[in-house]
Amino acid sequence: MARKVKITGIGIYLPKRIVTASEIDMLIGAAPGWSEARSGVKQRHFIKDESASFMGAEAAKMAIEHAGMSLDDIDCIVSGSGTMEQAIPCNAALIQKELGLEHSGVPAFDINSTCLGFVAALDVISYMIDAGKYKNVLIINSEISSVGLNWRQDESSVLFGDGATAAIITKSEGSSGILTSRMETYSAGAAFSEIRGGGTKVHPRHYSEESKADYLFDMDGKAIFKMSSKLMNPFIEKLFSGTGLWMKDINMVIPHQASWAAMKIIRKKLNVEEPRFMSIIENYGNMISASIPLALYEAIKEKRIQRGDRILLLGTSAGLSIGGMVLEF
Amino acid sequence: MARKVKITGIGIYLPKRIVTASEIDMLIGAAPGWSEARSGVKQRHFIKDESASFMGAEAAKMAIEHAGMSLDDIDCIVSGSGTMEQAIPCNAALIQKELGLEHSGVPAFDINSTCLGFVAALDVISYMIDAGKYKNVLIINSEISSVGLNWRQDESSVLFGDGATAAIITKSEGSSGILTSRMETYSAGAAFSEIRGGGTKVHPRHYSEESKADYLFDMDGKAIFKMSSKLMNPFIEKLFSGTGLWMKDINMVIPHQASWAAMKIIRKKLNVEEPRFMSIIENYGNMISASIPLALYEAIKEKRIQRGDRILLLGTSAGLSIGGMVLEF
Repeated sequence: MARKVKITGIGIYLPKRIVTASEIDMLIGAAPGWSEARSGVKQRHFIKDESASFMGAEAAKMAIEHAGMSLDDIDCIVSGSGTMEQAIPCNAALIQKELGLEHSGVPAFDINSTCLGFVAALDVISYMIDAGKYKNVLIINSEISSVGLNWRQDESSVLFGDGATAAIITKSEGSSGILTSRMETYSAGAAFSEIRGGGTKVHPRHYSEESKADYLFDMDGKAIFKMSSKLMNPFIEKLFSGTGLWMKDINMVIPHQASWAAMKIIRKKLNVEEPRFMSIIENYGNMISASIPLALYEAIKEKRIQRGDRILLLGTSAGLSIGGMVLEF
Repeated sequence: MARKVKITGIGIYLPKRIVTASEIDMLIGAAPGWSEARSGVKQRHFIKDESASFMGAEAAKMAIEHAGMSLDDIDCIVSGSGTMEQAIPCNAALIQKELGLEHSGVPAFDINSTCLGFVAALDVISYMIDAGKYKNVLIINSEISSVGLNWRQDESSVLFGDGATAAIITKSEGSSGILTSRMETYSAGAAFSEIRGGGTKVHPRHYSEESKADYLFDMDGKAIFKMSSKLMNPFIEKLFSGTGLWMKDINMVIPHQASWAAMKIIRKKLNVEEPRFMSIIENYGNMISASIPLALYEAIKEKRIQRGDRILLLGTSAGLSIGGMVLEF
């Protein structure tokens, strides 16, 4: 069942504005050191004037260069972002325009699974590449969380950062491929992390001072944590089932950078030592769907993973969903 | 390249509130008869208190019954809607909850290509079903356009309706399948139909009386029309290329119900006579991504298509994208 696909290029864009934990402490009126102790985030990037499509296009250009390709080689653009730039049209079309491909006809559409957007998009697209539908697909995860944070909810507002990643997915001629993938959604946890407003249910036309929190991110960290902890080990068992793989065969775990505390517990649950577990949250915070591909980028850059390594991408997202994938990189 | 998938069940939900053309005339201060003459829409459904996930779940129950299945048979839920119910989480998770599947673990994610959401989702999912990843996938298109219409923009506001469809996609054992599919995106037309606000670019927190139109649908019909007309015939040629199919082999064209005028021109461009061209816009308006599957539902109900027929799904969407697919039904 392995799908012969390969990540042939990867790129990132980080907004120029860096916001430190002490700035966050001041913003929320906390004692110095509180937000870092709470979240494990020393700094994160927030947009100044960048749009999500601009960031996505910048990351894409870097990925294309990394792959040794040119823009003309891309035959499909998928946005896997969990946030929309505009209500209409889809993110991928806006990114296509930023890339200067507005007359190209290259198909552009979105796949959304919030924080699992990269994993979900890679999974879906792998079947299309494997079947020969597309050759070089650009998956872009560009997230602006900063505009939707509720600074009165310390638990969530201290966690997030902005930024974008891009990956080029190509048919693999060698051993690179997706060895297994799995996703489970438990909407019993749908209200554990949400933005109730902004869509058709609580439309922006009803915006008011009293209702403004409805348009901002709202999270019940303890509830997410409780649910994810319970789901984790049975999920991993099913993900690995039939593959002959054991956790000891995994060279690197790339988890969603949800929060420092959540990642610590997941690592213990998986019984994986620190060197096999990418944690970049202290420098970037939780970047929604861009977290997993950014951690992958960092792992490549730091030479912590090599071609041929077995990599486990793993995370939970709003929904509540849990998703994972083992790549032979 | 045919993918062996079959639409084994289809269902719909229409809001109970019916809004006639004369009500629309009054609402926009037009002379009696103006809106119908302009749009070809005699009536459409608008929600009263329904949510998109409620409508989607109702349509899904009908599709499941139509397929002779039970809820337990569904192993993946995909929302192909062009509108979000909430900013977070994805629509499919909210629909899963409405279906009472909140503890099921059935994976749920969104694919968004605005008005082409059904075609894009069916295309993507067909590869996963063909490869054996999923058995029975529920694709739901549930759209609430009415909350986002700008009643000062007559051209667009008179066109739209609300409602939902659901389709169950299953591996085909017989001749049913997707014979060809294609999508092209030209973001040179991204601003021709858009809602600029509601996402990270113009966040609801900036809502004001002065900026309220930014959160409503804005369309330049002439520009869309000019671009789509130019794209249509070369697109069809490429869609059919290598299939041995000609337009005369198509038993029924199911176009996106964009507007009466647009559909009329498309029919002439395709050189297809009226009996082979589903038009349901007069009773429902443009229901965004639900238009194509609703027209398919009506064609089945009216026995205008039979198993084994060759059906062309075809439309344009915000982005601007053009997409099409030939099914052996």
